[in-house]
Amino acid sequence: MSVTTPRGFRAAGVAAGLKSTGKPDLAVVVNDGPDQTAAAVFTSNRFCAAPVIWSRRAVADHRLHAVVLNSGGANACTGEAGLGDSAETAHHLAEQLGVDDHDVAVCSTGLIGERLPMDKILTGVDEAVVGLSGEGGMDAANAIITTDTHAKTAVFQGDGWSIGGMAKGAGMLAPQLATMLVVITTDLSLTADQARAALTASTEVSFNRLDSDGCMSTNDSVLLLASGASGITPDTDEFTAALAEICLNLGHQLLGDAEGSSHDITIHVVNAASERDALVVGRSIAASNLFKCAIFGNDPNWGRVLSSMGTTDAGFEPSRVDVSFNGVMLCRGGEIGDDRALVDLSPRECTVVVDLHAGSEQAIVWTNDLTYDYVRENAEYSS
Amino acid sequence: MSVTTPRGFRAAGVAAGLKSTGKPDLAVVVNDGPDQTAAAVFTSNRFCAAPVIWSRRAVADHRLHAVVLNSGGANACTGEAGLGDSAETAHHLAEQLGVDDHDVAVCSTGLIGERLPMDKILTGVDEAVVGLSGEGGMDAANAIITTDTHAKTAVFQGDGWSIGGMAKGAGMLAPQLATMLVVITTDLSLTADQARAALTASTEVSFNRLDSDGCMSTNDSVLLLASGASGITPDTDEFTAALAEICLNLGHQLLGDAEGSSHDITIHVVNAASERDALVVGRSIAASNLFKCAIFGNDPNWGRVLSSMGTTDAGFEPSRVDVSFNGVMLCRGGEIGDDRALVDLSPRECTVVVDLHAGSEQAIVWTNDLTYDYVRENAEYSS
Repeated sequence: MSVTTPRGFRAAGVAAGLKSTGKPDLAVVVNDGPDQTAAAVFTSNRFCAAPVIWSRRAVADHRLHAVVLNSGGANACTGEAGLGDSAETAHHLAEQLGVDDHDVAVCSTGLIGERLPMDKILTGVDEAVVGLSGEGGMDAANAIITTDTHAKTAVFQGDGWSIGGMAKGAGMLAPQLATMLVVITTDLSLTADQARAALTASTEVSFNRLDSDGCMSTNDSVLLLASGASGITPDTDEFTAALAEICLNLGHQLLGDAEGSSHDITIHVVNAASERDALVVGRSIAASNLFKCAIFGNDPNWGRVLSSMGTTDAGFEPSRVDVSFNGVMLCRGGEIGDDRALVDLSPRECTVVVDLHAGSEQAIVWTNDLTYDYVRENAEYSS
Repeated sequence: MSVTTPRGFRAAGVAAGLKSTGKPDLAVVVNDGPDQTAAAVFTSNRFCAAPVIWSRRAVADHRLHAVVLNSGGANACTGEAGLGDSAETAHHLAEQLGVDDHDVAVCSTGLIGERLPMDKILTGVDEAVVGLSGEGGMDAANAIITTDTHAKTAVFQGDGWSIGGMAKGAGMLAPQLATMLVVITTDLSLTADQARAALTASTEVSFNRLDSDGCMSTNDSVLLLASGASGITPDTDEFTAALAEICLNLGHQLLGDAEGSSHDITIHVVNAASERDALVVGRSIAASNLFKCAIFGNDPNWGRVLSSMGTTDAGFEPSRVDVSFNGVMLCRGGEIGDDRALVDLSPRECTVVVDLHAGSEQAIVWTNDLTYDYVRENAEYSS
């Protein structure tokens, strides 16, 4: 159940030798049509990687025939030479598929600041093309993971149509995307505008509201490929809702597998004057190392929630703010509320509700706790 | 060598029983004049603690006769009752000194969201007043520490005058101050304007450029007390330079003792279009958990420097940026530079220089690495 669940798609994942472990590290996803409609969202980091530059150009005409993805090297901060490597990778796959170079997107993830071993990449592409199959989605999902402990896929089954997705990412998960590669496929027939609008709306309420560690990557890419093989043209709202569900599903899998985390934290800011205010407050809390360490220690430390919020310009009166941890209102009207001892933070899921009493808007931000293992993985893994 | 080094000051530090360990936890500093000129800088956190609210009012007339400081409880998020506690503390000391309540500042640090045990506070004030002495500065410095491993003091010796300072703070060190209490004394005769301008300028280039963990506290206070006991009126520039030196000295002591840190990191951003741009870039790097974990792992991970900078709106061309770690230019023109293996990150001191090639302005931001011990201390210590 993955990117090859919708009709019209083939995929493969192979071990090209980019990872020193010998594990799969190169994937290809092909859209056999009849449509090749595509949309994409990329990192807004100014040091975006060569494959992002390439793919942004490739998708500019709202059309993609295939995507080649590799782990084991980000091809970021590699200058003109790196851009040439992405172009060559696309060209190599395009030639074998008999399509235009600019109908091939390229995604890379791994260490920043090193050139890719192009001989291995090109040989890997050859091998992947031979292995392309309508059952290859899981192999592709396995080939794009890095520090992830498992592959992430999701499927939405509509009436006569479906959406499939795969994602990788286990750190650098931050607002405005992350070290995250996502490919979503559907056999619906979409206009370019439908694809773009639905993807933008869906990422805004899902991937863009994950903040695992506040770090924005150079390589984040979310691609949507529509084959039209179902022959069905969807209602835009229905499709957007289904796509958002897939994005949220994949997003929560990323968060649940975030490097070294022991808690998944939902920060729900309610009764804000605006959605923007709710988001600003939610993100300030999600970005607080002290708060995240406290959750790791199963400490419902509402003071660290307030001290984070207090740095924002969101509209609220400090003396009216309520804060609940897992349903217990520890802070009422900006002051001491119910007893901390009533809160059980031993489950992995933790929900903090912040009531601003300033309006009727709301937003949810998701994050993780800050743990020994996060530090260990990011002190030892060079990315 | 501390706040009682300048003439005209007495201090004391006692164990009032606020800390469960029985260690000293209450300090008093008295300015015997002849002047009682004062200036102060406080946290900009909107959830500022009761003692901050009290002290901001007390210093509004540029005059303070004494300061009472306690560790073992922040008196933050305690509402009107907490504000009453700060007022009562000030009143109690003022009465014994025969001064006005509003000539007494109050500073508190410790756990947020709990009332102070006022009986212990008041008894402690009584004991401290009895113990006041011209040699009491070190006792006072010892009584204000929390997770600090040692007291922090500094002295600047001028020609016939001096400045003395004490500071506490070992976490929540962030831009716009921190969980930081600082008292600085001088026997110079200052005008209110001189005191205010010098303190503002000095904190801007010292405490406000420390970012240990990105978290802003509810209780930060920096107080400057001038007794005029030397009879000397200083040149404003000379005094500001000396005061800045004291603030930098204390700031670096705070950073060197930051919770669980194993590296002191200096981020020097040069050739920026403006000082603001240099600061924005420096702070984005100092706020990156991935960068800070890498330094803990002795990994000169310049990719994480670039990916942090890439999230800012500072004026620079990504393809012109150079990044050096301890003198080795690992990134040249936004691309791979010299060999990482040339960098030795085993010393505690680490310097990252970022050359934006966009102008002639510069700024320095200081931070720490992110370590197991940081997580441990902040998961276990409830603040």
